[in-house]
Parts: sequence; structure tokens; C-alpha cells
Amino acid sequence: MIVGILGGGQLGRMLVLAGTRLGMRFRVWDPATDAGASELAPTINAPFDDTATLSEFVRDLDACTLEFENVPASLAESISGLGVPMRPSAHALMTAQDRLREKTLFHSLGIPTPKFVAVDSLADLQAAVGSVGAPGILKTRRFGYDGKGQRVIHPGDDLASAWSSLGAPANDAALIYEELVAFSRELSIIGVRATDGTTRCYTLTENHHATGILRLSIAPAPNVSAELQSHAEKLIRSIMTSLDYVGVLALELFEAPGAPGGLVASEIAPRVHNSGHWTIDNAATSQFENHLRAVVGLPLGACDCIGHSAMINVIGQMPEAGASLSIPYLRVHDYAKAAREGRKVGHLNIVAQTPGELRARLFAVRDANLAGVDLTALERVAL
Amino acid sequence: MIVGILGGGQLGRMLVLAGTRLGMRFRVWDPATDAGASELAPTINAPFDDTATLSEFVRDLDACTLEFENVPASLAESISGLGVPMRPSAHALMTAQDRLREKTLFHSLGIPTPKFVAVDSLADLQAAVGSVGAPGILKTRRFGYDGKGQRVIHPGDDLASAWSSLGAPANDAALIYEELVAFSRELSIIGVRATDGTTRCYTLTENHHATGILRLSIAPAPNVSAELQSHAEKLIRSIMTSLDYVGVLALELFEAPGAPGGLVASEIAPRVHNSGHWTIDNAATSQFENHLRAVVGLPLGACDCIGHSAMINVIGQMPEAGASLSIPYLRVHDYAKAAREGRKVGHLNIVAQTPGELRARLFAVRDANLAGVDLTALERVAL
Repeated sequence: MIVGILGGGQLGRMLVLAGTRLGMRFRVWDPATDAGASELAPTINAPFDDTATLSEFVRDLDACTLEFENVPASLAESISGLGVPMRPSAHALMTAQDRLREKTLFHSLGIPTPKFVAVDSLADLQAAVGSVGAPGILKTRRFGYDGKGQRVIHPGDDLASAWSSLGAPANDAALIYEELVAFSRELSIIGVRATDGTTRCYTLTENHHATGILRLSIAPAPNVSAELQSHAEKLIRSIMTSLDYVGVLALELFEAPGAPGGLVASEIAPRVHNSGHWTIDNAATSQFENHLRAVVGLPLGACDCIGHSAMINVIGQMPEAGASLSIPYLRVHDYAKAAREGRKVGHLNIVAQTPGELRARLFAVRDANLAGVDLTALERVAL
Repeated sequence: MIVGILGGGQLGRMLVLAGTRLGMRFRVWDPATDAGASELAPTINAPFDDTATLSEFVRDLDACTLEFENVPASLAESISGLGVPMRPSAHALMTAQDRLREKTLFHSLGIPTPKFVAVDSLADLQAAVGSVGAPGILKTRRFGYDGKGQRVIHPGDDLASAWSSLGAPANDAALIYEELVAFSRELSIIGVRATDGTTRCYTLTENHHATGILRLSIAPAPNVSAELQSHAEKLIRSIMTSLDYVGVLALELFEAPGAPGGLVASEIAPRVHNSGHWTIDNAATSQFENHLRAVVGLPLGACDCIGHSAMINVIGQMPEAGASLSIPYLRVHDYAKAAREGRKVGHLNIVAQTPGELRARLFAVRDANLAGVDLTALERVAL
């Protein structure tokens, strides 16, 4: 069985590692010459609009998936047009790539979202700030990630300058203006849907960001009632079903006690997700393995947690191996990337038997002052 | 960091998977053209006595190890002579490759072994059967595995025929005759020793064989007292220390209530071991990762179990993926090998929270009648 992967960064690398356990083979397509998955699988290095590459890439593929949601939806359509099952589909991809389509879908499914208005001109922006209020967030509808492509608008801000900083019309840069939701914490849920429509969900995960980048996830999220978990599962299942989705989908949420059901939807990612990296070491089946099982049409594995876990992102540079590995329970995942400011270069998982043990281990890691690790959020974690 | 691996079968493949998580890179040398690790790492395909290959293989290596203990010890010596740390060493390899040296070492360390006598001629064999008694086992000193290269001698057997069937003198086929030990079960313990002499041990594992091949391992082994675990750790630590060993070492044992300490040593394997495959899914650090940490001189990870686990070998052919993966907790490891009678083609891990849950899951797997799986031993497991 050969699976094609569009994109060969760390998510592609971890997909290959998970699928190799199951005896799968892979072919990766990445426009970058230093794709991290290329050490592990034959990799084609060409732009995504290279049609000669397309026929080479799809040859003998049993199925195709992606690890990078900004792959052109037209490419996904071409692959599926050549008879290779593309999962997730071009339709799911187009929805997730565009904040306006995405929030419109949430709205149509009755899923609470921040108030939002499409902004295609300065006049639109002025009207949007009038109707939604300020502060609010102006975002590009497409190609935003890790806090990039967005700007907070405060009352009295110069809207013309905000518009021109994000709205360069040459780049098809349609915008969206969103209400700044009052929330108590950020959560995410990861679901997976098989070709036969079966779905499974992982536990709600609590996420902490700094400078727009995820730093720390706790799974299971502390203080989550069975009702909240079940409500989150209902939301993600309704999205997966409405998109006829196949594979892993991540749904980022705000916990907002005032909202119906206590949750407001922020965005979806049509792929394995950074807030699910704990599943490698603390779930019966990792998100990577379950994604691949779905993509090739196999039954899904159990999503149960084994213990209590945390995932710590490593940003910029890996800590010295002797320092991180001398913490005996720390599970180091090094993406073998060159160091660069703001770059995700690895993550550290911790699995413990109790929340108290997890807390103690997290504080010990904080006190070790490892390079690339920011655990200032730890004070706010209610373990 | 680049690590060389002599041998590229499933053990090499799982070493590469574990090391990739830590950001390591690999170079594999295997005389076979279809080595399973070759999908994941640059692989040199040449006989182990090819000296031109040697210089190509060692270039820029930070350390070298093996996954196959019948690598020529002279090759290990050459690698280390070229300045590349070879772990385990040629000396450890020579000891483990030869049943007579191995048992002589056990004896010198005060570790109980079956009675044994070197057999280099028919006259030696006659004398050995006289002194050790029959039944006993006549074995080749070298190159035996999975029950190959051995023969049980019963009272009154024709010794000349036994000698000629195993003792073809043309092949340097020195033999050893061993007492058949009365034992209650087969156990193994896996230890790891770092370059600084630190050692860690995994829990004792209970092993069940059929037709000479491991079929089922249970870890932790049921009904093991703290004294028995600690005694087993003492034995393997004394072996590792006396060999100045670096890396993972497996020690196969008989539980024999009459023996001092309750254990009789059978043999060692100077590498990651089939009875340790459960560590991938049920230990804080897998045997593969700990082996590599030791080999490159990094600190060892914790060896604690997470839950109660079983490892089921898949022999001959993999079960149909839809059948095995529809058992939601089953962790399938497929080595992507062509089917062949008697060949190890994969393994299945189960992790459960209690022995009772493990037992129920094992019986459910038995009842699923998966191809390649022989769980007849299950009736004898005291979970």
C-alpha cells in the first residue's frame, strides 16, 4: 500500500513514522528542498502547480493525503480526478482554507462562533467595526497560521492603515473581521472519520499559546465535565459529517461559559494537528495512525488516553540532547530541522499516571530551563 | 548525528523508527537486497567482508551498532579500529556468538547455568552424555537461532548420527552438550548500559515458544516477586559490567524453583530482542530508543511499564489488515516483509490497565483467528 502525502514537514514525517509501523509505504511531494520527511520516504521536490510532477506523483498511489492545508484545492481536485482517493477532499480543503467559508459552515450547523463579517474594502471594514464593535480581530481569510495574517483593532484605531497592512488587494487578500470573544481558556478536539462514516474523538485538550504559537497542551484538559466532552464531540462530528470528511480533523475552541454549550468554535484544521501530538505517547492509537487508517479505508483505532499527558512545543532550537534526555520520563521528538527563530523544531511529551504527577513533572521541566521551551503558561494550568 | 547499523531486518527498521524521533540519522549495511530498514535509511548492500564497503560505510559515523549478532566480530573490530565507537564491542559480540564462551562467562560470574560440556568430537559427545546425562541438548556453539542448530539427545540415541548431523567439522562447527533443565517457565530480562556505566532494566517478561519460535510475551510477567525481579537485574547487571557492555542486552532465563535465586541462565543476545518489542507501546522508553541512547553516549530513559502488556509474534504472513485493525486496541507492527513459512513478519502489541483486561483482550484476539498468530500457549498464562 502506497500513500501520497502533499507536504513533507514534521507532520508528514510523523505520518510516515506512524504508517511505517503498519507496513505502509509513502511518496511525499514538497516544494521545499529540505522537507523533513524526505529522509524517510521518496520525495518529489517541485512546485505544487507542476503538472509533469503530478503524473509522476500519483503513479500506483492507493490514496493521497496532505499535511499542509494551504495545498491548492485545485491540486486535490486533479489528484482525485486521476482516480486516486484524495482525503480530505478538495471541498473540505476549500472550506478549511477560508475563514469566511469555515465560519459560515459553523453558523449553518448551529455551532456558536465569534460574530464575523466579510471585509473586501475599507468601507466594509468601517461598517464591520461599526456592527461587530471593537476591539475585534481583522484577519486574512486565507493563508494565516500561528497568529500570522491578523491584527487586533482597538477602538479609535486608524482603519485605513489596518486595511492597507493586511488588505493588499493584489494578493486576493480578502479579509474577515471577527469579534474578540471573552473566553476562559483555549481548547481543541481532534476527531477522525473513516470512509464508512464511523467517527472517533480524542479527549479535549487545553492549549496555551505565546506570541501566536502553541507552547503547551494538556490532555485530557483539566476540569472538563462529561457534558462538555460530549458537546465538543457533537460539534466536531457535525462538521465532519457535513463535509463528508475522511481523516483527522482538528477543531479549535474557546471555552466561554456564556455561550450555548459553553464552547465557541474558532477554526478547523483539515489534517493532523499540533495540539494532538500527545497522542503519540498517550493514546491507544495516535492521531497520525488514525489519520492514515481513515485515508486508506481501514478501521479506526481506539482513541482512549493511557494516562495524563502534556505536550511542550520546542520553538527556535532544540535543547542540548544531554539536558533533555537526562530527564528520564521526557519523550523527545526532534524534527531534525535547522534552528531558526520562531520555527517549530520539535516537541516534548510527558505521560504521567495522575494529574499531580504530571504537574510535578511539568514544573521539573520548567526548572530545567531547556532551550526552545516556554512554560510560563504553567502557572495558569489547573492540574 | 549519524549511526551505522550492521543488519537491516525488522530490528534495524525499529531502531531507525525510534532514533528518527530523536532526530538521529542512519546508515544501514546489509548483505540482503531486501532489507526492511532500507525504505527508511540509506542502505549499503554488500557482503560483510567487503573491505571497500567498510570505508564507505564508516564515513562520518558518530557511532555504530548492530541488529544481528552473527555479524563477524572481525568487522566490529575493524570499525572500532577506524575510530568509530562500536557498541556493543567485538569482545561482547564474540562472547555472545559462542555458547561455550557465553556459558563459561555465566559460570565465572556465579550465574547458574545448565551443566555444559564442549564437544569437538564423537568421543567428546560420548563422554559428555556420560557426565551430563540424557536427555540433554546438543547444540552448535555458533549461528543457532530460533531453535535451529540443536538436537535433543535421548537415552540410547545413536550418538554417531547425532554428531554427524550437527558436527560437520568442515564448518568449524564446534558443539556444546547441555543438560535439559527442569523449569516452570521461560523468562527474559532486558537491560541497557550507558557509556558512563549507568544501567537500567525492564521488567521480567514471560515467553512462550512454539516450534522453536517466540509466539507470545507477557510483560510484566505474572507472579513475579520483587526478589525475583531484583535477582534477575543483579544477574544481567553483572554480565553487562563484566563485558563493559554498551547498549541493550537481553538475557533469556529459565524459572527453576530449585536453582539458587530461582533462575537459570540460558543465553544472552547482544542487541534489542524480540521479547522486548512490548516496550514500544508499554514502556516510558522503548528498548530501541534506549539502545540508541546508549550507543551514542546519551543518558538512558526510564524503563518503567505503563500498564500490562502482551506481544504476539506474527509468523509466516500478516493477518488481513481489516481483520487485525478492527480490534480497536490492537497495535499492529507490520515489518512489510514478503510472506514465508516460519518468517517473523510482524508483531501485535496489547496494552491494558489491569491483568484481567489484558487476559480478556488476549482471548478476544485468539478467538479472532488471525493469520500468523498462534495463541495456543494462552491456556498456560496465569493472568
